[in-house]
Amino acid sequence: MTVTLGNRSAIPAPRRGSGVFERARTVTEPALRSAVDSLPPTTRRAVGYHFGWWDSKGNDRRGTAAKAVRPALVLVAAEAVGGTPVGMAAVAAVPAAIPAAVAVELVHNFSLLHDDVLDSAGPRRHRPTVWQEFGAGAAILAGDALLALAFDVLAGLTHPAAPTAARMLSATVAQLAEGHAVGRGADVSLEECFRATRRKTGALLECSAGLGGLLGGGTPAQIAALRGFGAELGLAVQLSDDQLGIWGGASKPAYSDLRHRRRSLPIVAALAAGSPSAERIVPAYTAEHEMSDVEARELAESLDADGWRDWCGREADRHLRAALDQLEPGITAERGQDLRTIARLAGDRDR
Amino acid sequence: MTVTLGNRSAIPAPRRGSGVFERARTVTEPALRSAVDSLPPTTRRAVGYHFGWWDSKGNDRRGTAAKAVRPALVLVAAEAVGGTPVGMAAVAAVPAAIPAAVAVELVHNFSLLHDDVLDSAGPRRHRPTVWQEFGAGAAILAGDALLALAFDVLAGLTHPAAPTAARMLSATVAQLAEGHAVGRGADVSLEECFRATRRKTGALLECSAGLGGLLGGGTPAQIAALRGFGAELGLAVQLSDDQLGIWGGASKPAYSDLRHRRRSLPIVAALAAGSPSAERIVPAYTAEHEMSDVEARELAESLDADGWRDWCGREADRHLRAALDQLEPGITAERGQDLRTIARLAGDRDR
Repeated sequence: MTVTLGNRSAIPAPRRGSGVFERARTVTEPALRSAVDSLPPTTRRAVGYHFGWWDSKGNDRRGTAAKAVRPALVLVAAEAVGGTPVGMAAVAAVPAAIPAAVAVELVHNFSLLHDDVLDSAGPRRHRPTVWQEFGAGAAILAGDALLALAFDVLAGLTHPAAPTAARMLSATVAQLAEGHAVGRGADVSLEECFRATRRKTGALLECSAGLGGLLGGGTPAQIAALRGFGAELGLAVQLSDDQLGIWGGASKPAYSDLRHRRRSLPIVAALAAGSPSAERIVPAYTAEHEMSDVEARELAESLDADGWRDWCGREADRHLRAALDQLEPGITAERGQDLRTIARLAGDRDR
Repeated sequence: MTVTLGNRSAIPAPRRGSGVFERARTVTEPALRSAVDSLPPTTRRAVGYHFGWWDSKGNDRRGTAAKAVRPALVLVAAEAVGGTPVGMAAVAAVPAAIPAAVAVELVHNFSLLHDDVLDSAGPRRHRPTVWQEFGAGAAILAGDALLALAFDVLAGLTHPAAPTAARMLSATVAQLAEGHAVGRGADVSLEECFRATRRKTGALLECSAGLGGLLGGGTPAQIAALRGFGAELGLAVQLSDDQLGIWGGASKPAYSDLRHRRRSLPIVAALAAGSPSAERIVPAYTAEHEMSDVEARELAESLDADGWRDWCGREADRHLRAALDQLEPGITAERGQDLRTIARLAGDRDR
């Protein structure tokens, strides 16, 4: 199809390669919805609301779909190790990888539901979070149900590596819990904060790539390479996200992490370095009153002037390069192309 | 061994058949501890504290072990369908049933950890609960880790029915979540309250007996009978527990459910029947101030005078009989002996 328009500059440039996320959504969403449909009604309603499928009464709504980074990683990793895709060209995927892609998306959303309770956070993607709309109890229970559902979906997989996949996923959940348990203290060192980030964000991306490699029939060396890729990508993604959380971007308003007094990586780094902005963080993060726009802007500017915005970018790039390095030599350049696309796009906007 | 004492009445009568719980603990605790040992350190400490193994610093302590109703049910059900036990006579068990026994105990404790957060409840077994000692976040995360660990343990099982077992367990978790989500409202009818109880307490006992039947090699009819047995037993157990929660007993102080304003089955039944005591429940459950000992005692006496204490006992007995009826004709009287013992003892004291 050719579209001719007088003013070509009015057409937004297509996001090169972003089809990898759309394909992941197309391939996994029917299975994801069918899994959620198996839940009992009250739980199902809170979950469907969380996914943005329904309003709080359970009526259909059209929302913007989330980015499906983790499902895409599973599918693409399975293909990268030579798993043979089936289906229409546009939506082909290695069959055994689809339940795993659904499972990691369920675990990711279990984690979001519980995190929002732990952090009293929201709104999320311009809507009140489940704990805000239905209460903390409903959010905890909906998360519990999604976690169990992830293992249900994996148990439905007839594949010799299915038990290994379940164990990989459960070990990842333990890492997620540990990362959140440790990363919450006010006296966390930068090293501990990085370690917690590896667990909170890195572990599930590591697991996603690893599950793809496992179910795609990869060798142990390839699976290890994919896990390393996912783990480093997780750090890069978190650093980009932490940058957006302070200085904002297309998809995220500025200062949100400051307002929530999140001890994100750049905040902990600034405190550890004792840079001039650190003297502003302490009173702003411990004051009785909520942070005003002026205070938040001044703090963000001070952190920027100290170089912490650039630090986020540099550190993110460094971990992105480390992620790509992991792919050599086990995954050829040609086979690893979609993995590179994910790496390039994953840090761009909201996950 | 014969023990001769001058004053025989000084010897407490042995609890006939209570060995069934001790055996379950003996058989499952090493595997349970080894599973918990695989958790990362901060999560592991909260979990070990919850199980009563360690104090809040992680030092060993001697505690009274919990009753292990659910593991016992798994082991005994596996033997009841003909699964061949191995091991020393005193601690023999069907090997494949052991991981399942550990898994249901993990799910039970996941549920306790989250329930205590939902209900701001504690102390539990004379100690502050995890949410009281470590905070709500730590309790949620420890619960999450135990839930994932349950599936990890099942995934380690090499048995043709292992995937079916995992799916049975995950469906049970969805029922637990639904039961808690629905059962929390102030306007729950008695029918809804019973349905929520079937989910909250019945589902995991149903699953325990069902998993034992499944992994012991039972026929579909036997597995269904065992599930029905567990489900009815769950109602009996909850009714006994609800009675203790109002009027107390050896293991539970009186009025605890009243003080927590729990809408337990007898409370909902009294409200639904519009009996005289119902007029006392409404103000006592909605007052701004905490319930005094005098108010709690008067409310308990009023409920007793209206017959709700007897109602709990009658209903518990009815469901216990229904549980035992389920065993006919699939499980012979001889093979079902230990199941009957569990049924008799399960409602006796704290679970």
